[in-house]
Amino acid sequence: MTADISGVPPSPRRGRPGYDQETVLRRAIDLFNRQGYDGTSMGDLAKELGFTKSAIYHHVPSKSHLLEQALDEALDGLAHALAAARAESGVTANERLRHAVRGSVMVLVDHLPAVTLLLRVRGNSEVESQALERRRHIDDALAEMVEAAVAEGALRNDLPPAMISRLLFGMVNSLVEWVRPDGRYDAEALADMVTTVAFDGLTR
Amino acid sequence: MTADISGVPPSPRRGRPGYDQETVLRRAIDLFNRQGYDGTSMGDLAKELGFTKSAIYHHVPSKSHLLEQALDEALDGLAHALAAARAESGVTANERLRHAVRGSVMVLVDHLPAVTLLLRVRGNSEVESQALERRRHIDDALAEMVEAAVAEGALRNDLPPAMISRLLFGMVNSLVEWVRPDGRYDAEALADMVTTVAFDGLTR
Repeated sequence: MTADISGVPPSPRRGRPGYDQETVLRRAIDLFNRQGYDGTSMGDLAKELGFTKSAIYHHVPSKSHLLEQALDEALDGLAHALAAARAESGVTANERLRHAVRGSVMVLVDHLPAVTLLLRVRGNSEVESQALERRRHIDDALAEMVEAAVAEGALRNDLPPAMISRLLFGMVNSLVEWVRPDGRYDAEALADMVTTVAFDGLTR
Repeated sequence: MTADISGVPPSPRRGRPGYDQETVLRRAIDLFNRQGYDGTSMGDLAKELGFTKSAIYHHVPSKSHLLEQALDEALDGLAHALAAARAESGVTANERLRHAVRGSVMVLVDHLPAVTLLLRVRGNSEVESQALERRRHIDDALAEMVEAAVAEGALRNDLPPAMISRLLFGMVNSLVEWVRPDGRYDAEALADMVTTVAFDGLTR
């Protein structure tokens, strides 16, 4: 650390690592994913970031504030991808669905830690309940897109559309279990593979 | 509660609900799934079962003992289903794989709480690490079955077999997110739907 021109060290930063809000959020999300949100205390966060227990409150108003930002990041991304797919005109319902699946995979890979956190939320607090409510709206909208693709005759009609939707997005969501940010597949390649398996099946 | 013939209440049970070990295990698994294993204390377990904090230790030697029993239940079931599918003779590699998928879905539905707990394990203790190790062996064996089905020409060869295996069992495992023990689909019907979607695809 360098002293400022007056020779006095800049006191707001004295003894504290110079993390910005974005870095604090990233490190917090990783910690929540490693040991669970409920299992992470403000003390754990302070330790992770190298703050004292009292200094952490200057950087983080509360644990739930960080959780809310993380869940909003994931939900905003998914909602935006979905809205873009639904807004397409001049294409079939099946193409809109394919684009929604592709878009969901891209958001999942690009915001992997935040989406991982979202998919583990169980509704144990107000912030979590609101996130689950938003997630339900997204799931409902995706289920409607599946229904439309079945109705236009593009998708098989021997299974309930609600079941198709659950299995399809269950496969998409399962990516969080093994995709790594520095992994060998990029988002586009993963999106291609998921849509190929889901729409065309494994049989040669 | 009735007194015994001597007129003295049977002291080992006095004031305690008459749960057997099986019931204790079921209630513990449900509690672990609701609030997380790490987030559940022996005190929480005692409260859930209506025991005093000191009485709980007469019924449950430790939290990790219950976790181990639960994870073994799930892993034994999956390993058994897999071994049965692999041992089949006179069928193709693809048929053995289909039977392994069906068997996995059946075990998942029949042992839903135990498998749900297994899929949430992150390796935070010796018991969890050992369970993850067993799970890896099962995943490797399933991946080998996928490879054999690709090699015999039954499954598409334009995707890495490891990827096919992950997406396939990602779809299977995602069932724990929404299947309910008293739900509208039985294990056989779910196994049929999952294998149909996975092998034949969604496209009509």
